[in-house]
Amino acid sequence: MKNYELVLHRVEADLAAGRLRLGGRLPGERSLAEQLGISRPSVREAVRVLEAMGIVRTATGSGPEAGAVIVAEPAAPLTALLRLHLATDHLPMGDIVQTRVLLESWTAREAARQVGGSDPASGGLETAEELLERMDAPELSPEEFHLLDAEFHVALSALAGNVLIAAVMSSLRTAIHGYVLAAVPNLADWDATAVGLRAEHRSIVGAIRSGEGDQAAALITAHIEGFYRAAQLR
Amino acid sequence: MKNYELVLHRVEADLAAGRLRLGGRLPGERSLAEQLGISRPSVREAVRVLEAMGIVRTATGSGPEAGAVIVAEPAAPLTALLRLHLATDHLPMGDIVQTRVLLESWTAREAARQVGGSDPASGGLETAEELLERMDAPELSPEEFHLLDAEFHVALSALAGNVLIAAVMSSLRTAIHGYVLAAVPNLADWDATAVGLRAEHRSIVGAIRSGEGDQAAALITAHIEGFYRAAQLR
Repeated sequence: MKNYELVLHRVEADLAAGRLRLGGRLPGERSLAEQLGISRPSVREAVRVLEAMGIVRTATGSGPEAGAVIVAEPAAPLTALLRLHLATDHLPMGDIVQTRVLLESWTAREAARQVGGSDPASGGLETAEELLERMDAPELSPEEFHLLDAEFHVALSALAGNVLIAAVMSSLRTAIHGYVLAAVPNLADWDATAVGLRAEHRSIVGAIRSGEGDQAAALITAHIEGFYRAAQLR
Repeated sequence: MKNYELVLHRVEADLAAGRLRLGGRLPGERSLAEQLGISRPSVREAVRVLEAMGIVRTATGSGPEAGAVIVAEPAAPLTALLRLHLATDHLPMGDIVQTRVLLESWTAREAARQVGGSDPASGGLETAEELLERMDAPELSPEEFHLLDAEFHVALSALAGNVLIAAVMSSLRTAIHGYVLAAVPNLADWDATAVGLRAEHRSIVGAIRSGEGDQAAALITAHIEGFYRAAQLR
Protein backbone atom coordinates (compact mmCIF):
# COMPACT_ATOMS: atom_id res chain seq x y z
CA MET A 1 0.00 0.00 0.00
CA LYS A 2 1.34 3.43 -0.90
CA ASN A 3 1.76 6.04 1.83
CA TYR A 4 -1.12 8.27 0.73
CA GLU A 5 -3.40 5.21 0.73
CA LEU A 6 -2.75 4.80 4.47
CA VAL A 7 -4.51 8.12 4.95
CA LEU A 8 -7.50 7.05 2.81
CA HIS A 9 -7.94 3.86 4.80
CA ARG A 10 -7.61 5.70 8.08
CA VAL A 11 -10.23 8.28 7.05
CA GLU A 12 -12.60 5.59 5.80
CA ALA A 13 -12.29 3.69 9.09
CA ASP A 14 -12.76 6.88 11.13
CA LEU A 15 -15.86 7.80 9.12
CA ALA A 16 -17.33 4.31 9.46
CA ALA A 17 -16.71 4.32 13.22
CA GLY A 18 -18.21 7.80 13.64
CA ARG A 19 -14.92 9.30 14.85
CA LEU A 20 -15.11 11.65 11.87
CA ARG A 21 -18.42 13.26 11.02
CA LEU A 22 -19.89 15.52 8.39
CA GLY A 23 -18.92 19.14 9.11
CA GLY A 24 -16.03 18.03 11.31
CA ARG A 25 -12.36 18.42 10.44
CA LEU A 26 -9.56 16.05 9.51
CA PRO A 27 -6.57 16.22 11.85
CA GLY A 28 -3.94 18.66 10.56
CA GLU A 29 -1.18 17.61 8.18
CA ARG A 30 1.55 17.29 10.78
CA SER A 31 -0.61 15.33 13.18
CA LEU A 32 -1.67 12.82 10.49
CA ALA A 33 1.90 12.49 9.25
CA GLU A 34 3.14 11.71 12.78
CA GLN A 35 0.33 9.30 13.59
CA LEU A 36 0.83 7.31 10.39
CA GLY A 37 4.60 7.62 10.22
CA ILE A 38 4.61 9.15 6.73
CA SER A 39 5.80 12.44 5.23
CA ARG A 40 3.71 15.60 5.16
CA PRO A 41 3.74 15.71 1.35
CA SER A 42 2.19 12.21 1.35
CA VAL A 43 -0.56 13.47 3.65
CA ARG A 44 -1.11 16.44 1.35
CA GLU A 45 -1.46 14.13 -1.67
CA ALA A 46 -4.04 12.05 0.23
CA VAL A 47 -6.03 15.16 1.14
CA ARG A 48 -6.14 16.11 -2.54
CA VAL A 49 -7.44 12.64 -3.38
CA LEU A 50 -10.10 12.94 -0.66
CA GLU A 51 -11.00 16.35 -2.03
CA ALA A 52 -11.27 14.97 -5.57
CA MET A 53 -13.51 12.21 -4.19
CA GLY A 54 -15.88 14.68 -2.55
CA ILE A 55 -15.04 13.64 1.02
CA VAL A 56 -13.33 16.81 2.21
CA ARG A 57 -13.19 20.43 1.20
CA THR A 58 -10.10 22.56 1.79
CA ALA A 59 -10.23 26.31 2.06
CA THR A 60 -7.41 28.23 0.42
CA GLY A 61 -5.35 30.14 2.92
CA SER A 62 -6.49 28.25 5.99
CA GLY A 63 -3.07 26.60 6.35
CA PRO A 64 -2.10 22.94 6.53
CA GLU A 65 -2.87 22.67 10.26
CA ALA A 66 -6.45 23.93 9.97
CA GLY A 67 -7.64 20.52 8.77
CA ALA A 68 -9.91 19.89 5.80
CA VAL A 69 -13.66 19.94 6.46
CA ILE A 70 -15.61 16.68 5.99
CA VAL A 71 -18.31 16.97 3.34
CA ALA A 72 -20.19 14.25 1.43
CA GLU A 73 -20.57 15.23 -2.19
CA PRO A 74 -20.49 12.18 -4.42
CA ALA A 75 -21.90 13.68 -7.63
CA ALA A 76 -19.01 15.96 -8.63
CA PRO A 77 -16.26 13.32 -8.21
CA LEU A 78 -18.37 10.74 -10.00
CA THR A 79 -18.72 13.22 -12.85
CA ALA A 80 -14.95 13.80 -12.93
CA LEU A 81 -14.36 10.05 -12.93
CA LEU A 82 -16.79 9.46 -15.79
CA ARG A 83 -15.44 12.40 -17.81
CA LEU A 84 -11.87 11.16 -17.50
CA HIS A 85 -12.83 7.62 -18.47
CA LEU A 86 -14.97 8.83 -21.37
CA ALA A 87 -11.91 10.74 -22.56
CA THR A 88 -9.80 7.55 -22.51
CA ASP A 89 -12.20 6.16 -25.08
CA HIS A 90 -12.59 2.90 -23.20
CA LEU A 91 -16.07 3.80 -22.07
CA PRO A 92 -18.27 3.69 -25.18
CA MET A 93 -20.97 6.34 -25.60
CA GLY A 94 -23.45 3.56 -26.47
CA ASP A 95 -22.98 2.06 -23.01
CA ILE A 96 -23.69 5.45 -21.44
CA VAL A 97 -26.88 5.86 -23.45
CA GLN A 98 -28.01 2.36 -22.44
CA THR A 99 -27.26 3.16 -18.79
CA ARG A 100 -29.22 6.42 -18.98
CA VAL A 101 -32.20 4.59 -20.48
CA LEU A 102 -32.07 1.96 -17.73
CA LEU A 103 -31.78 4.46 -14.85
CA GLU A 104 -34.19 7.05 -16.22
CA SER A 105 -36.92 4.64 -17.22
CA TRP A 106 -36.73 3.24 -13.70
CA THR A 107 -36.81 6.68 -12.04
CA ALA A 108 -39.73 7.77 -14.27
CA ARG A 109 -41.69 4.66 -13.28
CA GLU A 110 -40.87 5.17 -9.59
CA ALA A 111 -41.74 8.87 -9.77
CA ALA A 112 -45.12 8.02 -11.32
CA ARG A 113 -45.76 5.55 -8.53
CA GLN A 114 -44.79 8.04 -5.83
CA VAL A 115 -46.22 11.34 -7.06
CA GLY A 116 -48.79 10.09 -9.58
CA GLY A 117 -52.30 11.38 -8.96
CA SER A 118 -51.11 13.85 -6.32
CA ASP A 119 -52.25 17.45 -6.15
CA PRO A 120 -50.67 19.36 -9.09
CA ALA A 121 -49.38 21.93 -6.58
CA SER A 122 -47.35 19.31 -4.72
CA GLY A 123 -45.48 16.05 -5.20
CA GLY A 124 -42.14 17.53 -6.24
CA LEU A 125 -42.90 17.90 -9.95
CA GLU A 126 -42.89 21.71 -9.67
CA THR A 127 -39.12 21.97 -10.18
CA ALA A 128 -39.35 19.90 -13.36
CA GLU A 129 -42.31 21.92 -14.62
CA GLU A 130 -40.61 25.22 -13.92
CA LEU A 131 -37.63 24.05 -15.98
CA LEU A 132 -39.98 23.18 -18.86
CA GLU A 133 -41.31 26.73 -18.81
CA ARG A 134 -37.81 28.14 -18.91
CA MET A 135 -37.02 25.83 -21.86
CA ASP A 136 -39.95 27.38 -23.77
CA ALA A 137 -38.06 30.66 -24.20
CA PRO A 138 -37.44 30.90 -27.97
CA GLU A 139 -34.18 32.83 -27.68
CA LEU A 140 -32.26 30.06 -25.85
CA SER A 141 -29.03 28.91 -27.46
CA PRO A 142 -28.55 25.14 -27.82
CA GLU A 143 -26.10 25.34 -24.90
CA GLU A 144 -28.58 27.12 -22.60
CA PHE A 145 -31.33 24.71 -23.65
CA HIS A 146 -29.17 21.66 -22.92
CA LEU A 147 -28.16 22.92 -19.48
CA LEU A 148 -31.85 23.32 -18.55
CA ASP A 149 -32.61 19.98 -20.21
CA ALA A 150 -29.95 18.29 -18.06
CA GLU A 151 -31.39 19.94 -14.93
CA PHE A 152 -34.85 18.71 -15.92
CA HIS A 153 -33.69 15.09 -16.22
CA VAL A 154 -31.82 15.33 -12.93
CA ALA A 155 -34.92 16.79 -11.22
CA LEU A 156 -37.04 13.88 -12.48
CA SER A 157 -34.44 11.35 -11.31
CA ALA A 158 -34.38 12.85 -7.85
CA LEU A 159 -38.13 12.21 -7.47
CA ALA A 160 -37.52 8.48 -7.11
CA GLY A 161 -35.64 9.15 -3.86
CA ASN A 162 -32.57 6.98 -4.43
CA VAL A 163 -29.47 9.12 -3.80
CA LEU A 164 -27.07 6.74 -5.55
CA ILE A 165 -29.12 6.48 -8.74
CA ALA A 166 -29.71 10.25 -8.72
CA ALA A 167 -25.97 10.88 -8.31
CA VAL A 168 -25.04 8.47 -11.11
CA MET A 169 -27.68 10.01 -13.39
CA SER A 170 -26.57 13.55 -12.65
CA SER A 171 -22.92 12.64 -13.21
CA LEU A 172 -23.64 10.87 -16.49
CA ARG A 173 -25.59 13.85 -17.74
CA THR A 174 -22.86 16.32 -16.79
CA ALA A 175 -20.05 14.11 -18.06
CA ILE A 176 -21.56 13.94 -21.55
CA HIS A 177 -22.60 17.60 -21.75
CA GLY A 178 -19.64 18.54 -23.95
CA TYR A 179 -20.29 15.63 -26.30
CA VAL A 180 -23.98 16.54 -26.60
CA LEU A 181 -23.13 20.15 -27.49
CA ALA A 182 -20.48 19.09 -29.97
CA ALA A 183 -23.13 16.97 -31.71
CA VAL A 184 -25.66 19.81 -32.18
CA PRO A 185 -24.36 20.59 -35.70
CA ASN A 186 -25.27 16.98 -36.64
CA LEU A 187 -28.93 17.82 -36.15
CA ALA A 188 -30.67 18.75 -39.39
CA ASP A 189 -32.65 21.56 -37.78
CA TRP A 190 -32.04 22.70 -34.20
CA ASP A 191 -35.29 24.70 -33.90
CA ALA A 192 -37.38 21.74 -35.03
CA THR A 193 -35.44 19.46 -32.65
CA ALA A 194 -36.13 21.83 -29.75
CA VAL A 195 -39.87 21.84 -30.53
CA GLY A 196 -39.86 18.04 -30.47
CA LEU A 197 -37.86 17.82 -27.23
CA ARG A 198 -40.23 20.27 -25.49
CA ALA A 199 -43.27 18.21 -26.49
CA GLU A 200 -41.60 14.98 -25.36
CA HIS A 201 -40.69 16.51 -21.99
CA ARG A 202 -44.29 17.59 -21.42
CA SER A 203 -45.70 14.19 -22.27
CA ILE A 204 -43.22 12.52 -19.85
CA VAL A 205 -44.25 14.87 -17.03
CA GLY A 206 -47.92 14.31 -17.92
CA ALA A 207 -47.52 10.53 -17.65
CA ILE A 208 -45.74 10.85 -14.28
CA ARG A 209 -48.37 13.28 -13.00
CA SER A 210 -51.18 10.89 -13.88
CA GLY A 211 -49.37 7.91 -12.38
CA GLU A 212 -48.84 6.02 -15.64
CA GLY A 213 -45.45 4.52 -14.86
CA ASP A 214 -45.10 2.20 -17.84
CA GLN A 215 -46.08 5.00 -20.18
CA ALA A 216 -43.62 7.42 -18.54
CA ALA A 217 -40.82 4.82 -18.84
CA ALA A 218 -41.60 4.15 -22.51
CA LEU A 219 -41.72 7.86 -23.33
CA ILE A 220 -38.43 8.67 -21.64
CA THR A 221 -36.74 5.70 -23.34
CA ALA A 222 -37.92 6.87 -26.78
CA HIS A 223 -36.91 10.45 -25.90
CA ILE A 224 -33.32 9.56 -24.93
CA GLU A 225 -32.73 7.05 -27.73
CA GLY A 226 -34.30 9.37 -30.32
CA PHE A 227 -32.02 12.27 -29.43
CA TYR A 228 -28.81 10.23 -29.53
CA ARG A 229 -29.87 8.77 -32.87
CA ALA A 230 -30.67 12.20 -34.34
CA ALA A 231 -27.44 13.73 -33.01
CA GLN A 232 -25.43 10.70 -34.20
CA LEU A 233 -23.68 10.53 -30.84
CA ARG A 234 -21.25 7.63 -30.66
CA MET B 1 -9.57 26.43 -10.12
CA LYS B 2 -6.89 24.97 -7.85
CA ASN B 3 -3.46 24.28 -9.28
CA TYR B 4 -3.75 20.49 -9.26
CA GLU B 5 -7.05 20.80 -11.14
CA LEU B 6 -5.19 22.45 -14.02
CA VAL B 7 -3.36 19.16 -14.49
CA LEU B 8 -6.61 17.15 -14.47
CA HIS B 9 -8.16 19.38 -17.13
CA ARG B 10 -5.05 19.24 -19.24
CA VAL B 11 -4.92 15.42 -19.05
CA GLU B 12 -8.61 15.12 -19.86
CA ALA B 13 -8.22 17.38 -22.91
CA ASP B 14 -5.11 15.49 -24.05
CA LEU B 15 -6.91 12.16 -23.71
CA ALA B 16 -9.97 13.41 -25.58
CA ALA B 17 -7.78 14.78 -28.39
CA GLY B 18 -5.76 11.58 -28.65
CA ARG B 19 -2.50 13.31 -27.64
CA LEU B 20 -2.38 10.92 -24.67
CA ARG B 21 -3.20 7.27 -25.23
CA LEU B 22 -3.55 4.10 -23.24
CA GLY B 23 -0.12 2.67 -22.46
CA GLY B 24 1.55 6.01 -23.10
CA ARG B 25 3.13 8.21 -20.45
CA LEU B 26 2.28 11.53 -18.87
CA PRO B 27 4.98 14.17 -19.27
CA GLY B 28 7.36 14.20 -16.28
CA GLU B 29 6.73 16.28 -13.18
CA ARG B 30 9.09 19.12 -14.04
CA SER B 31 7.83 19.40 -17.59
CA LEU B 32 4.17 19.58 -16.52
CA ALA B 33 5.00 22.08 -13.79
CA GLU B 34 6.77 24.34 -16.28
CA GLN B 35 4.09 24.05 -18.97
CA LEU B 36 1.28 24.90 -16.55
CA GLY B 37 3.21 27.40 -14.44
CA ILE B 38 2.58 25.55 -11.17
CA SER B 39 4.78 23.96 -8.53
CA ARG B 40 6.04 20.38 -8.72
CA PRO B 41 4.25 19.40 -5.51
CA SER B 42 0.98 20.53 -7.15
CA VAL B 43 1.74 18.27 -10.12
CA ARG B 44 2.49 15.41 -7.75
CA GLU B 45 -0.87 15.90 -6.00
CA ALA B 46 -2.64 15.82 -9.37
CA VAL B 47 -0.87 12.61 -10.36
CA ARG B 48 -2.06 11.01 -7.12
CA VAL B 49 -5.62 12.09 -7.92
CA LEU B 50 -5.31 10.64 -11.44
CA GLU B 51 -3.94 7.45 -9.92
CA ALA B 52 -6.84 7.27 -7.45
CA MET B 53 -9.20 7.74 -10.40
CA GLY B 54 -7.71 4.84 -12.35
CA ILE B 55 -6.30 7.01 -15.14
CA VAL B 56 -2.59 6.51 -14.50
CA ARG B 57 -0.41 4.05 -12.69
CA THR B 58 2.90 5.06 -11.11
CA ALA B 59 5.69 2.62 -10.48
CA THR B 60 7.62 3.02 -7.26
CA GLY B 61 11.25 3.88 -7.83
CA SER B 62 10.87 5.05 -11.41
CA GLY B 63 11.44 8.69 -10.39
CA PRO B 64 9.32 11.79 -10.95
CA GLU B 65 10.63 12.32 -14.50
CA ALA B 66 9.69 8.84 -15.76
CA GLY B 67 6.05 9.87 -16.18
CA ALA B 68 3.04 7.91 -15.03
CA VAL B 69 1.63 5.31 -17.41
CA ILE B 70 -1.89 5.88 -18.80
CA VAL B 71 -4.27 3.08 -17.88
CA ALA B 72 -8.07 2.96 -17.91
CA GLU B 73 -9.34 1.16 -14.85
CA PRO B 74 -12.63 2.63 -13.70
CA ALA B 75 -13.80 -0.15 -11.36
CA ALA B 76 -11.27 0.26 -8.52
CA PRO B 77 -11.70 4.05 -8.16
CA LEU B 78 -15.46 3.72 -8.36
CA THR B 79 -15.22 1.17 -5.55
CA ALA B 80 -13.08 3.53 -3.47
CA LEU B 81 -15.53 6.37 -4.08
CA LEU B 82 -18.53 4.26 -3.08
CA ARG B 83 -16.76 2.86 0.00
CA LEU B 84 -15.83 6.33 1.22
CA HIS B 85 -19.33 7.66 0.69
CA LEU B 86 -20.90 4.61 2.32
CA ALA B 87 -18.67 5.33 5.31
CA THR B 88 -19.96 8.91 5.55
CA ASP B 89 -23.38 7.41 6.14
CA HIS B 90 -25.00 9.67 3.56
CA LEU B 91 -25.41 6.83 1.12
CA PRO B 92 -28.09 4.54 2.60
CA MET B 93 -27.63 0.78 2.25
CA GLY B 94 -31.25 0.54 1.05
CA ASP B 95 -30.40 2.68 -1.97
CA ILE B 96 -27.50 0.39 -2.79
CA VAL B 97 -29.70 -2.70 -2.60
CA GLN B 98 -32.27 -1.05 -4.86
CA THR B 99 -29.52 -0.11 -7.33
CA ARG B 100 -28.17 -3.66 -7.34
CA VAL B 101 -31.64 -5.03 -8.03
CA LEU B 102 -32.13 -2.60 -10.90
CA LEU B 103 -28.75 -3.27 -12.53
CA GLU B 104 -28.67 -7.01 -11.95
CA SER B 105 -32.21 -7.70 -13.07
CA TRP B 106 -31.38 -5.80 -16.25
CA THR B 107 -28.10 -7.66 -16.81
CA ALA B 108 -29.78 -11.03 -16.15
CA ARG B 109 -32.49 -10.23 -18.70
CA GLU B 110 -29.90 -9.06 -21.24
CA ALA B 111 -27.70 -12.09 -20.60
CA ALA B 112 -30.68 -14.40 -21.20
CA ARG B 113 -31.40 -12.62 -24.46
CA GLN B 114 -27.78 -12.85 -25.61
CA VAL B 115 -26.65 -16.29 -24.46
CA GLY B 116 -30.02 -18.00 -23.95
CA GLY B 117 -30.46 -21.22 -25.88
CA SER B 118 -26.79 -21.30 -26.86
CA ASP B 119 -24.64 -24.42 -26.68
CA PRO B 120 -23.93 -25.18 -22.98
CA ALA B 121 -20.21 -25.27 -23.80
CA SER B 122 -20.26 -21.68 -25.02
CA GLY B 123 -21.94 -18.33 -24.49
CA GLY B 124 -19.81 -17.09 -21.62
CA LEU B 125 -21.75 -18.77 -18.81
CA GLU B 126 -18.83 -21.12 -18.08
CA THR B 127 -17.11 -18.67 -15.72
CA ALA B 128 -20.30 -18.28 -13.70
CA GLU B 129 -20.87 -22.05 -13.63
CA GLU B 130 -17.30 -22.74 -12.55
CA LEU B 131 -17.78 -20.33 -9.65
CA LEU B 132 -20.96 -22.20 -8.64
CA GLU B 133 -18.98 -25.43 -8.46
CA ARG B 134 -16.34 -23.80 -6.28
CA MET B 135 -19.11 -22.46 -4.01
CA ASP B 136 -20.33 -26.04 -3.48
CA ALA B 137 -17.25 -26.88 -1.37
CA PRO B 138 -18.66 -27.51 2.13
CA GLU B 139 -15.56 -26.28 4.00
CA LEU B 140 -15.77 -22.69 2.73
CA SER B 141 -15.88 -19.97 5.38
CA PRO B 142 -18.59 -17.31 4.99
CA GLU B 143 -15.85 -14.94 3.83
CA GLU B 144 -14.57 -17.32 1.12
CA PHE B 145 -18.14 -18.03 0.04
CA HIS B 146 -18.99 -14.34 -0.26
CA LEU B 147 -15.88 -13.58 -2.31
CA LEU B 148 -16.86 -16.28 -4.82
CA ASP B 149 -20.48 -15.11 -4.64
CA ALA B 150 -19.39 -11.55 -5.53
CA GLU B 151 -17.31 -12.89 -8.44
CA PHE B 152 -20.33 -14.87 -9.65
CA HIS B 153 -22.57 -11.79 -9.71
CA VAL B 154 -19.87 -9.76 -11.46
CA ALA B 155 -19.42 -12.55 -14.07
CA LEU B 156 -23.17 -12.54 -14.79
CA SER B 157 -23.22 -8.73 -15.10
CA ALA B 158 -20.36 -8.79 -17.58
CA LEU B 159 -22.41 -11.02 -19.92
CA ALA B 160 -24.66 -8.11 -20.83
CA GLY B 161 -21.67 -6.37 -22.44
CA ASN B 162 -22.09 -2.87 -20.96
CA VAL B 163 -18.75 -1.82 -19.42
CA LEU B 164 -20.23 1.01 -17.37
CA ILE B 165 -22.98 -1.10 -15.80
CA ALA B 166 -20.51 -3.94 -15.18
CA ALA B 167 -18.07 -1.51 -13.50
CA VAL B 168 -20.79 0.02 -11.31
CA MET B 169 -22.04 -3.44 -10.35
CA SER B 170 -18.58 -4.72 -9.54
CA SER B 171 -17.80 -1.61 -7.48
CA LEU B 172 -21.05 -1.82 -5.55
CA ARG B 173 -20.42 -5.46 -4.76
CA THR B 174 -16.86 -4.80 -3.56
CA ALA B 175 -17.79 -1.66 -1.66
CA ILE B 176 -20.36 -3.50 0.46
CA HIS B 177 -18.27 -6.64 1.01
CA GLY B 178 -17.29 -5.63 4.56
CA TYR B 179 -20.90 -4.83 5.46
CA VAL B 180 -22.11 -8.18 4.11
CA LEU B 181 -19.52 -10.07 6.16
CA ALA B 182 -20.29 -8.08 9.28
CA ALA B 183 -23.94 -9.09 8.88
CA VAL B 184 -23.28 -12.86 8.72
CA PRO B 185 -23.86 -13.27 12.49
CA ASN B 186 -27.38 -11.86 11.93
CA LEU B 187 -28.25 -14.96 9.91
CA ALA B 188 -30.01 -17.61 11.98
CA ASP B 189 -28.09 -20.46 10.35
CA TRP B 190 -25.19 -19.87 7.95
CA ASP B 191 -25.12 -23.44 6.59
CA ALA B 192 -28.83 -23.34 5.75
CA THR B 193 -28.39 -19.91 4.17
CA ALA B 194 -25.53 -21.20 2.00
CA VAL B 195 -27.68 -24.13 0.81
CA GLY B 196 -30.41 -21.67 -0.19
CA LEU B 197 -28.01 -19.27 -1.94
CA ARG B 198 -26.48 -22.14 -3.96
CA ALA B 199 -29.92 -23.29 -5.15
CA GLU B 200 -30.92 -19.73 -6.06
CA HIS B 201 -27.70 -19.21 -8.03
CA ARG B 202 -28.33 -22.39 -10.02
CA SER B 203 -31.89 -21.44 -10.86
CA ILE B 204 -30.74 -17.98 -12.05
CA VAL B 205 -28.12 -19.55 -14.32
CA GLY B 206 -30.69 -22.08 -15.54
CA ALA B 207 -33.13 -19.32 -16.50
CA ILE B 208 -30.39 -17.38 -18.35
CA ARG B 209 -29.23 -20.55 -20.11
CA SER B 210 -32.72 -21.29 -21.37
CA GLY B 211 -33.29 -17.71 -22.45
CA GLU B 212 -36.05 -16.92 -19.95
CA GLY B 213 -35.15 -13.28 -19.28
CA ASP B 214 -38.16 -12.28 -17.19
CA GLN B 215 -37.73 -15.35 -15.03
CA ALA B 216 -34.00 -14.70 -14.59
CA ALA B 217 -34.72 -11.07 -13.60
CA ALA B 218 -37.40 -12.10 -11.09
CA LEU B 219 -35.16 -14.77 -9.56
CA ILE B 220 -32.17 -12.47 -9.13
CA THR B 221 -34.40 -9.76 -7.60
CA ALA B 222 -35.80 -12.21 -5.04
CA HIS B 223 -32.28 -13.54 -4.40
CA ILE B 224 -30.77 -10.12 -3.64
CA GLU B 225 -33.71 -8.78 -1.62
CA GLY B 226 -34.05 -12.05 0.31
CA PHE B 227 -30.42 -12.02 1.40
CA TYR B 228 -30.44 -8.42 2.58
CA ARG B 229 -33.65 -9.06 4.50
CA ALA B 230 -32.26 -12.20 6.15
CA ALA B 231 -28.97 -10.49 7.02
CA GLN B 232 -30.82 -7.38 8.27
CA LEU B 233 -28.46 -5.17 6.30
CA ARG B 234 -29.33 -1.52 6.67
